[in-house]
Amino acid sequence: MSHFYRLVVSCPDRLGIVARVSNFIAGHGGSITEASQHSDLETGRFFMRYEILADSIGMTLEELREAFEPVAREFDMQWALRDTQQRQRVVLMVSRESHCLVDLLYRWTAEGLDCDVVAVVSNHDDLRSMVEWHGIPYHHVPVTPETRPQAFAQVEQLIGEYQADTIVLARYMQILPPDLCRNYAGRVINIHHSFLPSFAGARPYHQAYQRGVKLIGATCHYVTEELDAGPIIEQDIHRVSHCHTPTDLVRFGRDVEKTVLARGLRWHLEDRVIIHGNKTVVFA
Amino acid sequence: MSHFYRLVVSCPDRLGIVARVSNFIAGHGGSITEASQHSDLETGRFFMRYEILADSIGMTLEELREAFEPVAREFDMQWALRDTQQRQRVVLMVSRESHCLVDLLYRWTAEGLDCDVVAVVSNHDDLRSMVEWHGIPYHHVPVTPETRPQAFAQVEQLIGEYQADTIVLARYMQILPPDLCRNYAGRVINIHHSFLPSFAGARPYHQAYQRGVKLIGATCHYVTEELDAGPIIEQDIHRVSHCHTPTDLVRFGRDVEKTVLARGLRWHLEDRVIIHGNKTVVFA
Amino acid sequence: MSHFYRLVVSCPDRLGIVARVSNFIAGHGGSITEASQHSDLETGRFFMRYEILADSIGMTLEELREAFEPVAREFDMQWALRDTQQRQRVVLMVSRESHCLVDLLYRWTAEGLDCDVVAVVSNHDDLRSMVEWHGIPYHHVPVTPETRPQAFAQVEQLIGEYQADTIVLARYMQILPPDLCRNYAGRVINIHHSFLPSFAGARPYHQAYQRGVKLIGATCHYVTEELDAGPIIEQDIHRVSHCHTPTDLVRFGRDVEKTVLARGLRWHLEDRVIIHGNKTVVFA
Amino acid sequence: MSHFYRLVVSCPDRLGIVARVSNFIAGHGGSITEASQHSDLETGRFFMRYEILADSIGMTLEELREAFEPVAREFDMQWALRDTQQRQRVVLMVSRESHCLVDLLYRWTAEGLDCDVVAVVSNHDDLRSMVEWHGIPYHHVPVTPETRPQAFAQVEQLIGEYQADTIVLARYMQILPPDLCRNYAGRVINIHHSFLPSFAGARPYHQAYQRGVKLIGATCHYVTEELDAGPIIEQDIHRVSHCHTPTDLVRFGRDVEKTVLARGLRWHLEDRVIIHGNKTVVFA
Repeated sequence: MSHFYRLVVSCPDRLGIVARVSNFIAGHGGSITEASQHSDLETGRFFMRYEILADSIGMTLEELREAFEPVAREFDMQWALRDTQQRQRVVLMVSRESHCLVDLLYRWTAEGLDCDVVAVVSNHDDLRSMVEWHGIPYHHVPVTPETRPQAFAQVEQLIGEYQADTIVLARYMQILPPDLCRNYAGRVINIHHSFLPSFAGARPYHQAYQRGVKLIGATCHYVTEELDAGPIIEQDIHRVSHCHTPTDLVRFGRDVEKTVLARGLRWHLEDRVIIHGNKTVVFA
Repeated sequence: MSHFYRLVVSCPDRLGIVARVSNFIAGHGGSITEASQHSDLETGRFFMRYEILADSIGMTLEELREAFEPVAREFDMQWALRDTQQRQRVVLMVSRESHCLVDLLYRWTAEGLDCDVVAVVSNHDDLRSMVEWHGIPYHHVPVTPETRPQAFAQVEQLIGEYQADTIVLARYMQILPPDLCRNYAGRVINIHHSFLPSFAGARPYHQAYQRGVKLIGATCHYVTEELDAGPIIEQDIHRVSHCHTPTDLVRFGRDVEKTVLARGLRWHLEDRVIIHGNKTVVFA
Repeated sequence: MSHFYRLVVSCPDRLGIVARVSNFIAGHGGSITEASQHSDLETGRFFMRYEILADSIGMTLEELREAFEPVAREFDMQWALRDTQQRQRVVLMVSRESHCLVDLLYRWTAEGLDCDVVAVVSNHDDLRSMVEWHGIPYHHVPVTPETRPQAFAQVEQLIGEYQADTIVLARYMQILPPDLCRNYAGRVINIHHSFLPSFAGARPYHQAYQRGVKLIGATCHYVTEELDAGPIIEQDIHRVSHCHTPTDLVRFGRDVEKTVLARGLRWHLEDRVIIHGNKTVVFA
Repeated sequence: MSHFYRLVVSCPDRLGIVARVSNFIAGHGGSITEASQHSDLETGRFFMRYEILADSIGMTLEELREAFEPVAREFDMQWALRDTQQRQRVVLMVSRESHCLVDLLYRWTAEGLDCDVVAVVSNHDDLRSMVEWHGIPYHHVPVTPETRPQAFAQVEQLIGEYQADTIVLARYMQILPPDLCRNYAGRVINIHHSFLPSFAGARPYHQAYQRGVKLIGATCHYVTEELDAGPIIEQDIHRVSHCHTPTDLVRFGRDVEKTVLARGLRWHLEDRVIIHGNKTVVFA
């Protein structure tokens, strides 16, 4: 099967970036199969993502990186170049609710979600059997108010040992310590069960019920130190009415949560998401 | 054309309400063409709305009201009984942006929005010609920080003179004084250009842009003294992306605003909305 | 935990039905927790669904049925009275694609989908291990052009042995024989992977791709002898663009299919769906 | 105010197109403010749209066209280069229903829909006063079975005299003759009041009601000789239920129709739509 190189760039906008980069690729015989660009007028920043047929370029990834380095320097680029053959290593973190986990594992086994799920970490032992049935190691790391520091030291050690590229909080329900957020900035994805910025914090469906909203939602975002305030990747909603109890809202919400998380994670794994301050550019 | 009586009831929930009310109506030969009920489990309150073919009942509205009074007392009901032949008198209030006004006037002239639009009141004179072309009186009441009290005294006097049943803030952009909110509680409908409770207050689309949300929305709600915090009647959303500027958000938002306001107002005029604390029951 | 009696009625519309039925229930001390009514103006037919707290009625289900019989006769009702303690027995039928099955089993184990999944029948053996892990018997009944009659005789025998109340075609991809459709009329639920009536028949996503539609959909409906033409229970859609290949459409579609099927099945199991000619009344 | 050149290209896909075109633009100092590309894998065709700040290029539109000609020839391009200062001339055609017309005129006067509405043509005289109030000429060309040929000769003459670039059938309800379709291929936009390909032809909402669908829709498409079968530009839907009569469907549908038509027309006017066989590429 053919594989691809993905070039993702963000830099100050100025004349000739596209010409320079597309020349560079054409000069190496590279066949671009997907191209996306965006100029942010407010900040004057430019973003691009190219997908290049790997076989069309007579170079290894390392050689290509080296060749591109001068171009990147010239335009003051933040950039990444990835080979789709090198799949990201993903650690999933869950608590007791299984809907997002079940959904992601289905997509991983049956739909070819493009990553290696290397481990599941949970503060409860409930979902062990289901996870192990999929052949994935399951780590139970209980978190209590007293043991929080040690627990998260253990979590961070596990993440390190598994060499995780991306951590997914698939309804993990625990707040990560600030240093973990910093060490894995842009690599930890959370699903929050509200249409942020409404109803940040705990029990958002109950907040939504009390406020009497007519739509509930879910938000997939990168985790930052400030709770539920990181860059938003994706959101969606579900219609509700006065007929619905908080329990109904929770049930409808699960469907939104798992869909939104799956979409956001897929885009992240395909290098379609570029963080820009506290916002995202998503080349969906 | 046949007309209808609409009976709207809210009362403490207990055994036999439906039996008692439907017996009462059947006992007078009344043919129910639409019936809606709701029991709120949290507060133990019961809500119902019946639409009854007027000709099937051998009584005037006043006689029917008198006959129903004992039933209402028995169950401690808050209730209203209206004849659809008596159309509500509506005053529209606008500022400079015309999209909601144009839309409501179209629905009123061409779609049979069931009310009498008796006047338009605005703090600007821009939309006079368009309104007067529709044969509706236009009142320009400028509002400045200095003249606010007098201006709103004049507004309230106009509303009184026109005997308005319902006031619609179709993007009026001014905060009503508390006593006006109280005097017309449950009768003033606003369209807020965000998905409340997100982005209450000024410039919500710019707030939404800054936060980087992926959906923008609009909220139709009853006006209360607390800004943008009244009972929500209806909400809807529109998808946006990093490509869109605040100007785009404003433009998309207009479509959502006018649709949401028109839906909310129609339900209100058809007695489908019952206020329940700071929430609504909407028999849509 | 409290259980409920569900009374579902359809009959010719005429004066006094609601009064008669609600009187009957109130007369036996029955507490109605949910009530829905609908009059179809075109056909003059009336539909109702009541949920009654079982403990509020001093009668068994059988006694209540007997007591209601005269009322039903008086109004020429088609009716059913069920106890929520008697869960429906459901047979799931699948082919190779697992997304609907995985989703339904998740909802059944974790979300309390209100039924007993008594067996899975498939024309392939692929999903056996996953199904058996859930503790559900798996029957592999291969279907080839030559063995069709015998295969479906075996399927119908299995359904009979399991005393299935409801059969769900969770992407079964085989056309049921006419007599099976007739014998289980109103009890076989299918998910079709298009927004019917568009793209009935085979490979709907490829048809949609060829037509260049901007939305794809899925349809949950009762199976009748005429292919993809039975009463529709629920539909939903997903936005697509020129960027998307047929493979993308299939992937997006899966999410719509499983959500739509789960919604439709839940409503069916809760006696919220009444078939009315080739349409449905859904008291959602 | 700054204006832009819009370059729209479609050609056989091959190596180096983007490099060649972006080089060309950069070579003339052109600042690209928006860029979109698409490769259709099935047909091997490539599409692109560039928006270029006109002032950044030291050339007139004509000079730029001449300079680009060799590039276009080299890659066998179908292409267009437009100056946003030259607004398209649009003729609107309507019948009796005004919702789409009112909406488009609102967007034109208040939202800066980027075109010149040069005339309205109708087979009825009903909407004359409203149109003329906007300062637009109104032509009443009645169409009867007997006068069809002469009527459409007159329509085509009017379109010719007004030098219309684009014709919008804003609920015109008459089938255009084949030669008119051919002469203005890719320039006549229709709004069909169903979710095509479902319910092509007459009275789609009544067809939808009879079929019992749970969503109704509208489709904006280019007109071709085959009725309701041209390339689709945009579609959207609205949820309905058993409660809704055909009249309700018509009413809900109007909101979808006008929104979908306005979106489709805006994209067309902004050169965002490229016809590709019987489909469209929409760089929205």
